Amino acid sequence: MIRAAIVGGSGYGASELLRLSVTHPELSIVRVASRKLAGKPVASVHRFLYQVLDLAFEPADPRKTGDGVDLVFVALPHGAAGPFVAELLAIHPDIRVIDLSGDFRLADPETHRSCYDESPAFPELRATFAYGLPELFRDEVKKSRRIANPGCFATGSLLALAPLAERGLLNGPVAVDGKTGSSGSGAEPGPKTHHPERTSLLAAYSPLSHRHVPEIEQALSRKGGRPRLSFVPHSTPLVRGVYTTAYATNEKGIGAAEALEIYRARYAGERFVRVLDGPPDAGVVAGSNFADVWVTASRDHVIAFSAIDNLVKGMAGQAIQNANLLFGLDESLGLAAPGSRP
Amino acid sequence: MIRAAIVGGSGYGASELLRLSVTHPELSIVRVASRKLAGKPVASVHRFLYQVLDLAFEPADPRKTGDGVDLVFVALPHGAAGPFVAELLAIHPDIRVIDLSGDFRLADPETHRSCYDESPAFPELRATFAYGLPELFRDEVKKSRRIANPGCFATGSLLALAPLAERGLLNGPVAVDGKTGSSGSGAEPGPKTHHPERTSLLAAYSPLSHRHVPEIEQALSRKGGRPRLSFVPHSTPLVRGVYTTAYATNEKGIGAAEALEIYRARYAGERFVRVLDGPPDAGVVAGSNFADVWVTASRDHVIAFSAIDNLVKGMAGQAIQNANLLFGLDESLGLAAPGSRP
Amino acid sequence: MIRAAIVGGSGYGASELLRLSVTHPELSIVRVASRKLAGKPVASVHRFLYQVLDLAFEPADPRKTGDGVDLVFVALPHGAAGPFVAELLAIHPDIRVIDLSGDFRLADPETHRSCYDESPAFPELRATFAYGLPELFRDEVKKSRRIANPGCFATGSLLALAPLAERGLLNGPVAVDGKTGSSGSGAEPGPKTHHPERTSLLAAYSPLSHRHVPEIEQALSRKGGRPRLSFVPHSTPLVRGVYTTAYATNEKGIGAAEALEIYRARYAGERFVRVLDGPPDAGVVAGSNFADVWVTASRDHVIAFSAIDNLVKGMAGQAIQNANLLFGLDESLGLAAPGSRP
Amino acid sequence: MIRAAIVGGSGYGASELLRLSVTHPELSIVRVASRKLAGKPVASVHRFLYQVLDLAFEPADPRKTGDGVDLVFVALPHGAAGPFVAELLAIHPDIRVIDLSGDFRLADPETHRSCYDESPAFPELRATFAYGLPELFRDEVKKSRRIANPGCFATGSLLALAPLAERGLLNGPVAVDGKTGSSGSGAEPGPKTHHPERTSLLAAYSPLSHRHVPEIEQALSRKGGRPRLSFVPHSTPLVRGVYTTAYATNEKGIGAAEALEIYRARYAGERFVRVLDGPPDAGVVAGSNFADVWVTASRDHVIAFSAIDNLVKGMAGQAIQNANLLFGLDESLGLAAPGSRP
Repeated sequence: MIRAAIVGGSGYGASELLRLSVTHPELSIVRVASRKLAGKPVASVHRFLYQVLDLAFEPADPRKTGDGVDLVFVALPHGAAGPFVAELLAIHPDIRVIDLSGDFRLADPETHRSCYDESPAFPELRATFAYGLPELFRDEVKKSRRIANPGCFATGSLLALAPLAERGLLNGPVAVDGKTGSSGSGAEPGPKTHHPERTSLLAAYSPLSHRHVPEIEQALSRKGGRPRLSFVPHSTPLVRGVYTTAYATNEKGIGAAEALEIYRARYAGERFVRVLDGPPDAGVVAGSNFADVWVTASRDHVIAFSAIDNLVKGMAGQAIQNANLLFGLDESLGLAAPGSRP
Repeated sequence: MIRAAIVGGSGYGASELLRLSVTHPELSIVRVASRKLAGKPVASVHRFLYQVLDLAFEPADPRKTGDGVDLVFVALPHGAAGPFVAELLAIHPDIRVIDLSGDFRLADPETHRSCYDESPAFPELRATFAYGLPELFRDEVKKSRRIANPGCFATGSLLALAPLAERGLLNGPVAVDGKTGSSGSGAEPGPKTHHPERTSLLAAYSPLSHRHVPEIEQALSRKGGRPRLSFVPHSTPLVRGVYTTAYATNEKGIGAAEALEIYRARYAGERFVRVLDGPPDAGVVAGSNFADVWVTASRDHVIAFSAIDNLVKGMAGQAIQNANLLFGLDESLGLAAPGSRP
Repeated sequence: MIRAAIVGGSGYGASELLRLSVTHPELSIVRVASRKLAGKPVASVHRFLYQVLDLAFEPADPRKTGDGVDLVFVALPHGAAGPFVAELLAIHPDIRVIDLSGDFRLADPETHRSCYDESPAFPELRATFAYGLPELFRDEVKKSRRIANPGCFATGSLLALAPLAERGLLNGPVAVDGKTGSSGSGAEPGPKTHHPERTSLLAAYSPLSHRHVPEIEQALSRKGGRPRLSFVPHSTPLVRGVYTTAYATNEKGIGAAEALEIYRARYAGERFVRVLDGPPDAGVVAGSNFADVWVTASRDHVIAFSAIDNLVKGMAGQAIQNANLLFGLDESLGLAAPGSRP
Repeated sequence: MIRAAIVGGSGYGASELLRLSVTHPELSIVRVASRKLAGKPVASVHRFLYQVLDLAFEPADPRKTGDGVDLVFVALPHGAAGPFVAELLAIHPDIRVIDLSGDFRLADPETHRSCYDESPAFPELRATFAYGLPELFRDEVKKSRRIANPGCFATGSLLALAPLAERGLLNGPVAVDGKTGSSGSGAEPGPKTHHPERTSLLAAYSPLSHRHVPEIEQALSRKGGRPRLSFVPHSTPLVRGVYTTAYATNEKGIGAAEALEIYRARYAGERFVRVLDGPPDAGVVAGSNFADVWVTASRDHVIAFSAIDNLVKGMAGQAIQNANLLFGLDESLGLAAPGSRP
């Protein structure tokens, strides 16, 4: 049994890690640390855990958080995660770390600084982290002890576009239209997630300037692509889901059937990536760790689609998938729940 | 491993039975029969099961449906379930049956006829069914081989009111205000579940004439109550959930603390009934088999609350709980998933 | 043309007053004051008014707010409205005031203090306010210059129950089950209106202790009733709407048809109260100033229903209805928009 | 006062025409014809009109529908509208017609046939219809008596892209990502608008094959564009709204500020098109006839955005705007309602 702690226990990252760990046969969350909630019952915040998980929040202390556990899930915000991890590893150098923030995702410290300006770059520590998207970088994940868990938009875009990059078909302009549910904004209420308005809100935001773009470019270039991305995320009234529609320039004029064949071949052995016969639906993967993908082509564009649950394959489910790999377990352990209808 | 079949495979009852059985360690759905969909892949309708469950719908034939299985979940509509069960048991007399419809819930054939006029009463067969609300009738369930699975509103009302009935505190007028999500209307689209309108629909329906009322009265009277129910169900924009607010006449003038103590004592050993410190929330139990309850009192009313997921504790989860009991398994097997936030 | 100002310009009260005044032929909002937003364009907060209303927020100053206007709508929070109104009337004693808060609704200063403890009682000023529910107190509204605009739950409960009170049929226990949409919580984001959670939230709150109860009792007693209310409000995933299901003790054993006849007669001449043939639906009145009502009866209960848009008949629409009356205009001016489908 | 009839009275087109006409000072709907509902009160279907509009549905008869009215709004489905209009005009040749279907939108009969195969082409009649997008073809609308009212996606795409076409900046590949609310599917319930599933549905459909594409291409080519469109519509959990994000090849490398200046200049005098300072939001225009647009540019793409209410500017509001023009009235009459918050 893997003994794990979570630090940053109040948010949706923690919430989903706790939910998934309840039915995980080999992973036990034995400690939940929070900067704000120390002393309170975990179930007072994550109320679905009432009479299920009998833990109280502990202080977010790097020494104590790591005591007696094999693994720490870091669910702190960007900028807070990095310093915590640095301290934690100074004290517990061998502990496994899976960081859900953006603080260790970008290999290049300069790119990191320009993207997350509030956050120190930790250039040496950074180099020890693997980028935890198993379907693209499984070997690195397996060899590593420290994982930078990908962003939700990055996971969606990369699973949609990687097969093209690997075939040398991704070297020109790509318009990536991202669509997200409200849970992507986290557990903290704000004007954009205020229910009376969010239920009828559909709007682009941060056009061309979202922080996940360098993360996507970094991973695609490692797979052989040189795309020029125009990424526009959109808020929708969905709760769970990141949906990606990527319009890549059809440089070599491939057809729809040919494109689909490439995707089928690429993801043939992947448990969590399903290549469908038509466009995916975020509602079908909600609650599960699946990423559903599809691709078609017009004369001008290869159009690649993906749908994930931003909190599962886009965050906590992927973190558990990475945890399974770090400890040599079956990658899908604890992740068998298949979505639902409705 | 229990081998089970589902008949009535297109609806939400089947959908949830399939979802829950995927992670159930001792129950395997080996056949899904449908009157309309025979030959089609199950995952073409329940799309979340794509690459998870590799079955095709089979014809809804009483002989074949029962062949080689230990248990049949009957998820047919009221009126269709009864005749199917009668035929099935004529051929396979020892098979276990859990019927999700209303066709065998009412002990008295006359009451049944007046309530479900389209349905034959099967008076002798009827007498062999146990009413499958384990928290109230566990011993009967364990002894039986045939279960009438309760209605969702009945489950909610009964868990809210039974502790009063058992204490002799439920002999006068009770106003039961029920609130349901749209999934309670089933998988078939209709005007009341048309998304553009349902998102802003909040309305009572079938006031004083809902079919679950005789079911509630029958069970409460067996527990010692003689309530006179005024039951008014309401449609809401929720998807999953049945919420019950029951205003019972405070005949003996008990106080809020005393009432709560009665509930705590009553449900102390129950895994799936959680007595809270304040009003329950349907969102907290969604996806889980929990029923959250609470009670308070004014001078005139004892006000009892319950929240369940209508598709889980109100239908398929309770059916699996009953299946576990029928086969002598731990009652909570396959039902450990604890809800979520969000 | 009535020249009006709004103070408390950032919330939904202001938002709806502005929306409705755009198409009102005799009412012009010439000033919007805000404690927090002075200097910003009104359309930067109420974005639907972009290129429609070219005003900037002004400071919430009692002297300036009243300068050159005939009427001030006070849309400040409870506790802030009272002192502002007191100052405003000290400087502009003849100005018309419609206060949307609870600060002047309760006639008895002691009841007010026990209910809104943070707010001074202004006992003399209080006595000069009329309770602005035109269908019950039209003559007082017409004679007055200062209006305490009713609460949304109070409006819903009173329109549902007043016909019984007036007939002497409301002297015993009444269980009032209220259901509200998220816009009732106002424009300020908070945990209970956080979209990822509110979309699946259905829960009672403040059981037996809601502030609108004394307001309801005060008005019903003036109409001849002596009800003993057990009021339980519920949050739902609706955006707009307050739905009331009131279970009054059927003291005289009246029948459903008789009850309905009482309601039809009572509201026969009312433009904004529609007596239906069955339970109302909050979705049907959304966006409009209508209150749809219905009544039925069981042996034990007379069950009265009402549905309103909490922001219109429950707040800003009623305020404009009151404004029309204060200035001797047709009561329905500017309020003709009839809801919509969907 | 313009006397108008609606034929096809059960759907959302009729519903919105009726809603908007209630407050229109110069337009009166005097007849509502329906193929299915003749004899029933209009308010039994459009319940928000109870005690507001006292009409019963009449049979959908071309002779009687046109009797004594100046204008007929045809809200029949594609394929049914064409034959009805042909008959209507044979009998009442001078009557004004505004057809909300696709039956007269495409100038070329062959294109029409390939796109709407069930529908006869009426080549001569077709030539007498003007395409009713006033912001692009106002003069033609004013001169005409017969209007083909544009599709909702077409309206959104055209208002987003026309300024580029007019400047000669739209001659290459354009990826148009469309997003629609559920009301775009009409009033008839179906699997894709079943509330339990639609609330969490986000999915592309009809990729590269939507019927509005030829309509968009036809209008853009008349404005000087030669775009090659890859159009992918998406279903979302929104109720009202069509949101367009169009990624046009940045052929001449124009900058974001320059692009925005083009849009500001183009729409300077337009009452219903608002050029914003950032991405539009479908929630802000819901209920109104506004189209909010914005544009930005990356090195590779000019990215144009629009948000409309699909039932208003995308259907019935635009139809009334056209009606105003047909009769020489102020274009904005009856369309002043400005949206709302929330």
